[in-house]
Amino acid sequence: MYAVGIDLGGTYTKVAVISKRGKMAGRTHFETQKFNKFDSWVEKSVSVIKNLLKENSVAGKNFVGVGIGAPGHIDHKKGIIHTLVNIKGWDSVHLAKEFKKRMGKPVYVDNDANMMALGEYAYGAAKGARNAICITLGTGVGGGLILENKLYHGSFMAGGEIGHMPVNVEGPACACGGKACVESYVGNSYIVKRTVGYLKRHNKSILARWFKGKYHKITPLDIANAAKSGDALAKQIWDETGEYLGVCLAGVVNLLDPEIVVIGGGVAKAGGLIFKPVRKTLKERVMQIYSERLKIVPAKLGNDGGLMGCAWQVFEHGKA
Amino acid sequence: MYAVGIDLGGTYTKVAVISKRGKMAGRTHFETQKFNKFDSWVEKSVSVIKNLLKENSVAGKNFVGVGIGAPGHIDHKKGIIHTLVNIKGWDSVHLAKEFKKRMGKPVYVDNDANMMALGEYAYGAAKGARNAICITLGTGVGGGLILENKLYHGSFMAGGEIGHMPVNVEGPACACGGKACVESYVGNSYIVKRTVGYLKRHNKSILARWFKGKYHKITPLDIANAAKSGDALAKQIWDETGEYLGVCLAGVVNLLDPEIVVIGGGVAKAGGLIFKPVRKTLKERVMQIYSERLKIVPAKLGNDGGLMGCAWQVFEHGKA
Repeated sequence: MYAVGIDLGGTYTKVAVISKRGKMAGRTHFETQKFNKFDSWVEKSVSVIKNLLKENSVAGKNFVGVGIGAPGHIDHKKGIIHTLVNIKGWDSVHLAKEFKKRMGKPVYVDNDANMMALGEYAYGAAKGARNAICITLGTGVGGGLILENKLYHGSFMAGGEIGHMPVNVEGPACACGGKACVESYVGNSYIVKRTVGYLKRHNKSILARWFKGKYHKITPLDIANAAKSGDALAKQIWDETGEYLGVCLAGVVNLLDPEIVVIGGGVAKAGGLIFKPVRKTLKERVMQIYSERLKIVPAKLGNDGGLMGCAWQVFEHGKA
Repeated sequence: MYAVGIDLGGTYTKVAVISKRGKMAGRTHFETQKFNKFDSWVEKSVSVIKNLLKENSVAGKNFVGVGIGAPGHIDHKKGIIHTLVNIKGWDSVHLAKEFKKRMGKPVYVDNDANMMALGEYAYGAAKGARNAICITLGTGVGGGLILENKLYHGSFMAGGEIGHMPVNVEGPACACGGKACVESYVGNSYIVKRTVGYLKRHNKSILARWFKGKYHKITPLDIANAAKSGDALAKQIWDETGEYLGVCLAGVVNLLDPEIVVIGGGVAKAGGLIFKPVRKTLKERVMQIYSERLKIVPAKLGNDGGLMGCAWQVFEHGKA
């Protein structure tokens, strides 16, 4: 039994054929921007899927369906994308319907952060958990909730927006229209912005030497490398970032009482630099009853969590 | 069909006989402190229940069981109270077992804020909602979550602690061991403390005239009365209180995407004084997709929400 997972990203669209046990049989990708009109993206995706299935000798009864994860507001029941975060012009497109027409198989569409959470729950770090909080740290901060062994969608299919929980009453304006959201402290560009702000005042950091004023080139990876070289400013940046994230997660944990928090995405690759202050802050701020039992772990599936979740959702839906 | 609801409070224990349709057939109460040993409280409660059932001619098959709500950490599956907030010495007592032995009927025990949420969901302001957030404002700030038409308990039966979600990175120490929890801004005594702090600096407030330095006597009700008389300081206190609560709820709404937020408890009696700034803050800070559809409403059942929830839980359990 095989399903196809599609991860529609702003840069690449990733496509994979995945077995029910979670083995990736084959994979490929194409540049999203070259096919960024809805119709051309559908045509391209369908042809890529057909080739991939052929190459991996998956056909007919062995092929269960297609799962698609996309960054935006999605009606997973009707398979409609209402809006996408990075791609303009896909307003209320009937994605599932168009794929079904061409593939003749069930098609499932959902938010990409939800699919990542589901992937980690089905095949990764949150396997076996009844209640799990999953968060992805990147340009944006996405979240997905597994509650009572199910992906939680909320009343208007927009739940899980951990990135837009405020961590302060006053604070920076957030792209969502809110203020002091955790994303506006720990999102990629905000981490860099904060670093550059500090660098302009304290230029003893190794980052000042590395970048010689060309601070717009700094990435979170550079800040992690600087911290690993013992740079005090870079370490401080990660301590602060972990604390902001920890404050947000303390609220989520006190509210939802999960057994596990899974942290993935590019920024999570800083490893202990961010996990250590996150764990410290949680220990200080969650209610005592959780602090011993709660697990805070890195995502296990890396960038493939979304693809795996897409496939799993197809297998689950096939049952229903 | 009738159930008995018991609301174990620090001051009073309330007992009521409630019909399946939510009609309160009879009620009474006794002082908890006079029976604050576990055994004597159980004996007292059982005798009060028996009298109440007799007075209301409820017996045998018409009497379905007993539901008990208590402020503390409770194992609702086993009917054990692990710890109580205001009463010492009840450590891991088998409350359900003791009642069952004496009453010969099913007994259900749960946290009081959960029971209030369930009461509002079954018979009150959140009737018909699939996902509802309920919050009670008093000395403490309690919360209960209805998710996908069910009371949500979490992994360690301690979910719903809205009061202990941080609203700031830095802020006052909270009784829970955390910092800057919403309770440490909007709990009864904290509202008063903040008011007294202001009064010591700006004594033009009508409250200064009313209390003549005896500020320890001020209650939230006094502050509400002062605000209703047009007092600027008192109005400011409520604006701030509503903003703190609104910031917390903005996070909860962005995370859980409910259709309704129900606010009850003594402090909620300030009405528009607190609801107006809460609604304003939510409008400013929740993601656009919710802001039009979300309802923020006062609790409908007042102090009886917990009792009603207890009864409903018995009727529901009877089915299972």
